[in-house]
Amino acid sequence: MSATAAAAATATAESIADLLSARYGAVDPPAPGPSNEVIRTLLNHRSVRSFLPDRPLPPGTLETLIAAASSASTSSNLQTWSVVAVEDPERKARLSVLAANQKFIRDAPLLLVWIADLSRLERVGEARGQEMEGLPYLEAFVLGVVDAALAAQNAVTAAESLGLGCVYIGAMRNKPAEVAAELKLPPNAMAVFGVSVGYPDPDVRTEVKPRLPLSLVLHRETYGAPAEAEAIARYDAALAEFSRRNGMGDTAWTPRVLSRIGTLAGLSGRDKMREVLTAMGFGLR
Amino acid sequence: MSATAAAAATATAESIADLLSARYGAVDPPAPGPSNEVIRTLLNHRSVRSFLPDRPLPPGTLETLIAAASSASTSSNLQTWSVVAVEDPERKARLSVLAANQKFIRDAPLLLVWIADLSRLERVGEARGQEMEGLPYLEAFVLGVVDAALAAQNAVTAAESLGLGCVYIGAMRNKPAEVAAELKLPPNAMAVFGVSVGYPDPDVRTEVKPRLPLSLVLHRETYGAPAEAEAIARYDAALAEFSRRNGMGDTAWTPRVLSRIGTLAGLSGRDKMREVLTAMGFGLR
Repeated sequence: MSATAAAAATATAESIADLLSARYGAVDPPAPGPSNEVIRTLLNHRSVRSFLPDRPLPPGTLETLIAAASSASTSSNLQTWSVVAVEDPERKARLSVLAANQKFIRDAPLLLVWIADLSRLERVGEARGQEMEGLPYLEAFVLGVVDAALAAQNAVTAAESLGLGCVYIGAMRNKPAEVAAELKLPPNAMAVFGVSVGYPDPDVRTEVKPRLPLSLVLHRETYGAPAEAEAIARYDAALAEFSRRNGMGDTAWTPRVLSRIGTLAGLSGRDKMREVLTAMGFGLR
Repeated sequence: MSATAAAAATATAESIADLLSARYGAVDPPAPGPSNEVIRTLLNHRSVRSFLPDRPLPPGTLETLIAAASSASTSSNLQTWSVVAVEDPERKARLSVLAANQKFIRDAPLLLVWIADLSRLERVGEARGQEMEGLPYLEAFVLGVVDAALAAQNAVTAAESLGLGCVYIGAMRNKPAEVAAELKLPPNAMAVFGVSVGYPDPDVRTEVKPRLPLSLVLHRETYGAPAEAEAIARYDAALAEFSRRNGMGDTAWTPRVLSRIGTLAGLSGRDKMREVLTAMGFGLR
């Protein structure tokens, strides 16, 4: 392990240079720029999948996380999102089964399920006797998904700033109708993803996961991907090293992409999403 | 103006109780919970639409914002997003015309256009000679939209922590094909929204905008909207007061919702999004 990687592997690596190096797996990290506690919190994110099941969140934490979520931007202030906070162990267990049977959903004391919620606007229209012409369009679904994502990310940032750990659960989309039934969602409301929240198990090391180099995601003026194949090859090597260090085999990025998106099986049933959402009331025109 | 509203109206309101009261327009704000500088930054968000056009961002700021964006969670680490940083005044002006002709897009020194980018995965498949079976599905589009939104929200939080102002630009979806042409996006890549970034004009007051009460967006165990109509009526009154204070007439929430989503005209052309995206290469099956 290089000295840089070793520094990055500790949870206490706090310098911006270390955090940037860890974030990019030492593949062309940018020079340290302006920084503060907020930026350190953001750069230091890692998904937590091992929680202390018996350590509850302090009183007022849930409300604070949701107030942070409410503070995110929302398109035209329409606020087309909701969140369902699930703490009941039996409901968490049932939702875990629906979401690829992931153990951490049961372990974490709090499961936040983020909803693209067009139903509230539908009810506003009903109360005024006005048909909501814009709702049955793909655009309205995008509004709900974006609103839910911006809100959730604020909640996650707030949680991590408090020493809590979080992990997003995209598998909440594997069986949208069953999740909706469990949460008693009205028509025109869909669980976009879950977020498990709790105190990280201090005995399980987590590490900042390297991302694609800045040169591949940040484009100047127009889109361009010069030397993309070479940059991906170096990223593959960095991610394989990360995987080895963390007991996850030596999986690089490219093989992971190919198995996840290259085959229909990798969608875990989500190829049915369009028809399921239509049955749930979304127009998606 | 109430004492609470007056306190909230100043940019220096820093106590969590004041921030929560402002965020909920004094409609049932939650009791102050745990707090720190990160949470204060999140609660204190307001969209900025008046920028100092001649004050550039400090060196290294853009890279720091994008490193924060890269640090957000991404589904299965697929990283189906990109961002195009636009600083050229003529390109900003052209994009402004495409996005409802909003002046702040020209004024702000930096425009970040956030891309749901499935094209990178497509290229990975091409390089390996593998057809990417999962790409032409609505699920893949959702992956890209969520990834772009989580990344953007981290960048916005980082920017605001540095004293910069931001505003999301959903109108970047009004003419997706024209925006894609301007940014030279490849097929299977779409501008989900823009974010203008710059120093706020100190002569233009901005104020935390009240959101729907916590009781309407936060559901416990299952979805429920008890007393929703009454809560919306109180929120309508709070938002009308906010609008009056800020010289925006006395528009409440309900009329805004009805004009924005109640009529097809309120979609500003986005009712065509599905067919335009199909022409841009998205399967959306």
